[in-house]
Amino acid sequence: MSPRTKPLSEEQIALFDKWWQAANYLSVAQIYLLANPLLRQPLKREHTKPRLLGHWGTTPGLNFIYLHLNRIIRDHARNILFIAGPGHGAPGVVASTYLEGTYTDFFPDVTQDLDGLALLVRQFSFPGGIPSHAAPTTPGSIHEGGELGYSLSHAYGAAFDNPDLTVACVIGDGEAETGPLAAAWHSNKFLDPATDGAVLPILHLNGYKIANPTVLARIPQTELLALFHGYGYAPILVEGHEPGPMHQKMAAAMDEAFAAIAAIQHAARQGGTPARPTWPMIILRSPKGWTGPKTVDGQRTEGYWRSHQVPFSDLDKPGHLALLENWLRSYRPETLFDDNGTLHADIRALAPQGELRMSANPHANGGVLKKPLHLPDIAEHCVPVASPGVLTAESTRVLGTWLRDVMRANLAARNFRVWSPDENNSNRLTAVLDASPRTWMAETYAYDDHLAPDGHVMEILSEHTCQGWLEGYLLTGRHGFFSCYEAFIPIVDSMVNQHAKWLKTAREVPWRQPIASLNYLLTSHVWRQDHNGFSHQDPGFIDHVINKKADIARVYLPPDANTLLCVARHCLESWNRINVIVAGKQPELQWLDPDAAQAHCTQGIGIWEWASTDRGHEPDLVMACAGDVPTMEALAAVDILRRAIPDLKIRVVNVVDLLTLASPEQHPHGLDDATFDSLFTLNRPVIFAFHGYPQLIHKLIYKRANALNFHVHGFQEEGTTTTPFDMTVINHLDRYHLVLNTIRHVPTLTERAAYAAQAMRDRLVEHRRYVDSHGQDMPEIRDWVWPFHTRPDNSPSAGSAEPQARANGAPPD
Amino acid sequence: MSPRTKPLSEEQIALFDKWWQAANYLSVAQIYLLANPLLRQPLKREHTKPRLLGHWGTTPGLNFIYLHLNRIIRDHARNILFIAGPGHGAPGVVASTYLEGTYTDFFPDVTQDLDGLALLVRQFSFPGGIPSHAAPTTPGSIHEGGELGYSLSHAYGAAFDNPDLTVACVIGDGEAETGPLAAAWHSNKFLDPATDGAVLPILHLNGYKIANPTVLARIPQTELLALFHGYGYAPILVEGHEPGPMHQKMAAAMDEAFAAIAAIQHAARQGGTPARPTWPMIILRSPKGWTGPKTVDGQRTEGYWRSHQVPFSDLDKPGHLALLENWLRSYRPETLFDDNGTLHADIRALAPQGELRMSANPHANGGVLKKPLHLPDIAEHCVPVASPGVLTAESTRVLGTWLRDVMRANLAARNFRVWSPDENNSNRLTAVLDASPRTWMAETYAYDDHLAPDGHVMEILSEHTCQGWLEGYLLTGRHGFFSCYEAFIPIVDSMVNQHAKWLKTAREVPWRQPIASLNYLLTSHVWRQDHNGFSHQDPGFIDHVINKKADIARVYLPPDANTLLCVARHCLESWNRINVIVAGKQPELQWLDPDAAQAHCTQGIGIWEWASTDRGHEPDLVMACAGDVPTMEALAAVDILRRAIPDLKIRVVNVVDLLTLASPEQHPHGLDDATFDSLFTLNRPVIFAFHGYPQLIHKLIYKRANALNFHVHGFQEEGTTTTPFDMTVINHLDRYHLVLNTIRHVPTLTERAAYAAQAMRDRLVEHRRYVDSHGQDMPEIRDWVWPFHTRPDNSPSAGSAEPQARANGAPPD
Repeated sequence: MSPRTKPLSEEQIALFDKWWQAANYLSVAQIYLLANPLLRQPLKREHTKPRLLGHWGTTPGLNFIYLHLNRIIRDHARNILFIAGPGHGAPGVVASTYLEGTYTDFFPDVTQDLDGLALLVRQFSFPGGIPSHAAPTTPGSIHEGGELGYSLSHAYGAAFDNPDLTVACVIGDGEAETGPLAAAWHSNKFLDPATDGAVLPILHLNGYKIANPTVLARIPQTELLALFHGYGYAPILVEGHEPGPMHQKMAAAMDEAFAAIAAIQHAARQGGTPARPTWPMIILRSPKGWTGPKTVDGQRTEGYWRSHQVPFSDLDKPGHLALLENWLRSYRPETLFDDNGTLHADIRALAPQGELRMSANPHANGGVLKKPLHLPDIAEHCVPVASPGVLTAESTRVLGTWLRDVMRANLAARNFRVWSPDENNSNRLTAVLDASPRTWMAETYAYDDHLAPDGHVMEILSEHTCQGWLEGYLLTGRHGFFSCYEAFIPIVDSMVNQHAKWLKTAREVPWRQPIASLNYLLTSHVWRQDHNGFSHQDPGFIDHVINKKADIARVYLPPDANTLLCVARHCLESWNRINVIVAGKQPELQWLDPDAAQAHCTQGIGIWEWASTDRGHEPDLVMACAGDVPTMEALAAVDILRRAIPDLKIRVVNVVDLLTLASPEQHPHGLDDATFDSLFTLNRPVIFAFHGYPQLIHKLIYKRANALNFHVHGFQEEGTTTTPFDMTVINHLDRYHLVLNTIRHVPTLTERAAYAAQAMRDRLVEHRRYVDSHGQDMPEIRDWVWPFHTRPDNSPSAGSAEPQARANGAPPD
Repeated sequence: MSPRTKPLSEEQIALFDKWWQAANYLSVAQIYLLANPLLRQPLKREHTKPRLLGHWGTTPGLNFIYLHLNRIIRDHARNILFIAGPGHGAPGVVASTYLEGTYTDFFPDVTQDLDGLALLVRQFSFPGGIPSHAAPTTPGSIHEGGELGYSLSHAYGAAFDNPDLTVACVIGDGEAETGPLAAAWHSNKFLDPATDGAVLPILHLNGYKIANPTVLARIPQTELLALFHGYGYAPILVEGHEPGPMHQKMAAAMDEAFAAIAAIQHAARQGGTPARPTWPMIILRSPKGWTGPKTVDGQRTEGYWRSHQVPFSDLDKPGHLALLENWLRSYRPETLFDDNGTLHADIRALAPQGELRMSANPHANGGVLKKPLHLPDIAEHCVPVASPGVLTAESTRVLGTWLRDVMRANLAARNFRVWSPDENNSNRLTAVLDASPRTWMAETYAYDDHLAPDGHVMEILSEHTCQGWLEGYLLTGRHGFFSCYEAFIPIVDSMVNQHAKWLKTAREVPWRQPIASLNYLLTSHVWRQDHNGFSHQDPGFIDHVINKKADIARVYLPPDANTLLCVARHCLESWNRINVIVAGKQPELQWLDPDAAQAHCTQGIGIWEWASTDRGHEPDLVMACAGDVPTMEALAAVDILRRAIPDLKIRVVNVVDLLTLASPEQHPHGLDDATFDSLFTLNRPVIFAFHGYPQLIHKLIYKRANALNFHVHGFQEEGTTTTPFDMTVINHLDRYHLVLNTIRHVPTLTERAAYAAQAMRDRLVEHRRYVDSHGQDMPEIRDWVWPFHTRPDNSPSAGSAEPQARANGAPPD
């Protein structure tokens, strides 16, 4: 397992060690020093920072790895992207990027001399400076590493469709305990050696977390190696603590790993065997806080968890300042930097040049490589809606045919993938498989269905892995679309937090170019999870997303297939956003023809005149709706009201772009008050049928003049295994409850429409009775269509259109 | 790897197969039939359900495993809890519990005859009936299995401190792809064979998910076995499809596994080696939809993904009804049930008796076993607060000493554990280690710190694993406390969703007894993450939790150590709740003495008279605060206002129990309007300093009379690496911005206090300048204490109390 060759001469080892000492020196200096960066004066208390922040423990290992990757780049001109899973090791990452000159390229003030070094050490974890972990401000980084677990899925995401790229991914043994990381090892079953790049995982076993040993460092070596053989890798062990021999071992391991990668790629690209290769990986077992103080105040420190963050603080404590100075001087900075404070040229020569420097790799600033998608016209995919609310269609199935064409149009560019946790077909995006199969490098059988090594439909039953792959793919300049059951997307809540933070910060870094948006389609949504029951009912992801920075978060609730197409196209055109689209997959009534859909989506919100009866007057009430099922129930309620109380002036407002409801200072899509009031009136009751938790609407509109007249119906955390319509009844989002609430809140109706209210209550009783005995909704529910002909011209009218049968016998999923 | 013995006679095999056929028959019948449960009449369309729901694919495997576990129980009186990771296989789980009689015990209407069978088949996934996956309504279940990933961590959680229990945990190969499941295999490094029970993982490789093959079924057997050796298990393979040989192999595998478990436990309990044992596991490789239709409409079905859910639907399609009838009759129900529809006694005799039946295992209804914790008095842990806002303390460190005593008081009962993802010490709960070490079964070194096999402090760097273990522990009747960095707890958002749904549904199941609450301490919170930066700043978990069912969700924001103690004690006394406590770990000013803290927490919200200047009058403004840092800033703002405008009538309201703000119809803790208005007035400006996203407050109070006068300061998604006070400045939650906003909103002040407003702006400029140059807050910020002596008696006054030095030099974490 351990490499046997000795590729380095003694002179090379000495020189390599000097680079490593320089990187380690600058790492410690960043953590501790405020001034006197090269210790040209004796160290004084005022040269040190008042608050000591940053993580030393992982840093020397990161520096060691970085140096040895540079050797491979220099010798073989390999295109390598570096991912530091232990992002808290930023002192090291920043030091390495400074030593190879990139930091100065991106931040010209941080010059390659004493002045620049003074800035470099001062800015670290200091007000107005840089954070203590690799971040958007770090050249060469696509990975923050504050929240742990995603380095390896990011690495694979970056490698997909980048055949010339190798992603070297350092994984801390702490991070390796997380679920998302543990799952991501299996990504090698989805990487095509012919058309994708390579990932070289480097597991850094330094043995400790904040205050505990790590699991993988405390299992027998036989188990450790078996685990990674089991994951499908060929591990190469590099173990020890003496710098000289370790440089030799690491160089040999790197040679072996990159030779293996080259051989695998060569074989696959010669039209060789399509079998899944056993990719190499490196396990580096080295001391935590390597080269740091052995003990502090008599307590074990190097090679122990006390090295995890700052090995010692409180520099006023007797001996600590001297300890720091001795530690810093142990790297002999006077031998590394010249009088100007510039790294000696022979050491500097160990770095690659130009874009071959990992910190200058353009893939790490994916926006510079990003090309817009070719987006086929949606027109031919639109549903022909001659009259609203008569025909049914499965919105996501319609979207699937357009996504298939998007896939085809961009297949040559290899920059678009569709992702789903084993739900692509269940979500009715099946058509995309006609354009590209699922990615699959594991074993196949003759009867397998649309599996191929170079497929562009990504499916693994891990929302975390899908999300991580997609983030890595987007951050390196490509495009994607993630479909997921609405109830289970909160699995990646925290990943969304981190990506939103990355986008927010990256926007403020001048040299970071915009990347494609993170696009979600949430389907199999809460109102059609009657069959799967309560565990599958959760609309909370939109609550989560709208807490993100307003410039980044978007939420769309298209009511039908044509609006879904418009919204999806818009999302795929957008950049630097997190777009959430919620749309059902079940057969649903269709409302808007293509032109009306486009106009409606452009506004994001609007009055549906054809359904309204206020005809230019102040309405008696506004019936508002957002979401496909709520729209249908609201329209059905309008139908009942129009028949029962013909002179009632109803205004129907449909919301596609949820954040139009916010005030403009809260969100850029927020309507100004005048427009908002012109839609929702100043004082009329608004009965609002909403897809999610009702309080979300109240949270968005609390500042509006008419806020207190909003009566929102939405999901209430009441579990059920019933029927689709019963789901809405239990949550009071059904047509009958909407009518009842209308009667309650429109003052002129309360007495006058008592008969209608009683009729509603009767229907609810009847409905309950019918459902209990038949197991499905009453025919008046199942077969309801919008009964008002709105187009008296020659186009097919509601009367002549034949509603498709509802697929009540279809299998659930 | 494969067992060699043949423990079953031919007669036994035949009988075992009959049970299995009965279970499979009832599974199919539940999915498809509405009536005619034993096919005593020819099958007609009206005997079938209009909507077909449920998952067949995993079900025969679950039935097979259940049967063979029953043999072990019968032969060895083993106490076994069954966890069905593929919870969607409820038709099988329910069928097995019915066959062994438990279902009838819990649901007496579902009798052991034709009438009962008619109810059994009708209720499945039918309105008013039971859901399609194992749920709180399922006897013997502690695991829902709708969202996948948590079966194995639940299993280990159930096994901790239950030395006589073996948890048999079936893991689908789909679930095995998820991150949380992949991480949970390492739980064997935390299970003590002497004092804990055993977990027998049974990986069910049936090869397919909804529409894809599974990864683990498509890797070479060498890799598969290496993977589980690497995870530290001894896998036993059972592979095939012919029922007879498979019964024999499975019986032998079970014998081998349970013999290995017994040997491990015997050795450990004889005072044998404390080394980590290699626990057995079983890998069952059997066809998906085993015994179902080989093909449907000419398409491969058994042993393929088409068996995942309902192998075929649309029973009006020619041939389908006959296909169903043939399939059902293939199990020969007439040979399994007698004329009354009762299972033949010889088959029934394969089930264990009484509580040995897995479906009657009391551990699965943990509330019946639950004992209240012994909770030591908090008095001796309280901070002596002679005068508010002078002394500092680290609230969580204070809590830690009480938790240490809680640990000690319950150590003999072995029913309390503390959980953290490697953050226990960082969260300053270090004292608990004095009562019990960390659980650790992996390798140890002499210099290790508080590690032991039977420790009760659980630390692994996986929030998912911690949460899953804790849920399993609670669901089996024990108690726990989970501390976590606030920013990373959204990693388990979706697990919280599922646990909340379980609690909500379980409350409605009459025989389910209440369990201990799920208690979170969120610390290292957003306002003290200046050093870690933006990635560590996220207060969104409380938004997430308050969307849960009101009866279940609780959120507490104690402002200091004494209130934290009161709240924590309350949470550990409560049951069936999800309690979220947010409290900082850094040195902070202390406000309330023990009595005042208790009184304040009992109310949950209240006026701090000692800080207010309205003295019984209608105030000019209300300064409200919720959270420790916001409270300090609000009080500092009050200090500034009191000095600058001595006649200003300020009322200070502090909120500990966040949901007091909700209206009573929204939440049981919601104040009635009269009380709310008496605190917040009907029309005076309320300047509200809030720990989280400001809109959360607006969402809670939008119905209140004074809602539009609330001006909430909170977290705004603005990243920073600055200083603690700068964090609040950037978010406008600092004292100066609070004063500025007060001046803006109190009409009489706008002109009059222009001088004060200018002073505030000057302080902000000065602060920025100071921070940029010194890297820490101005002394007037760092050293600020509440300057008003409130106790003119002999107790120590503010003047004589010596504020502790702030620990600015302490290491970050």
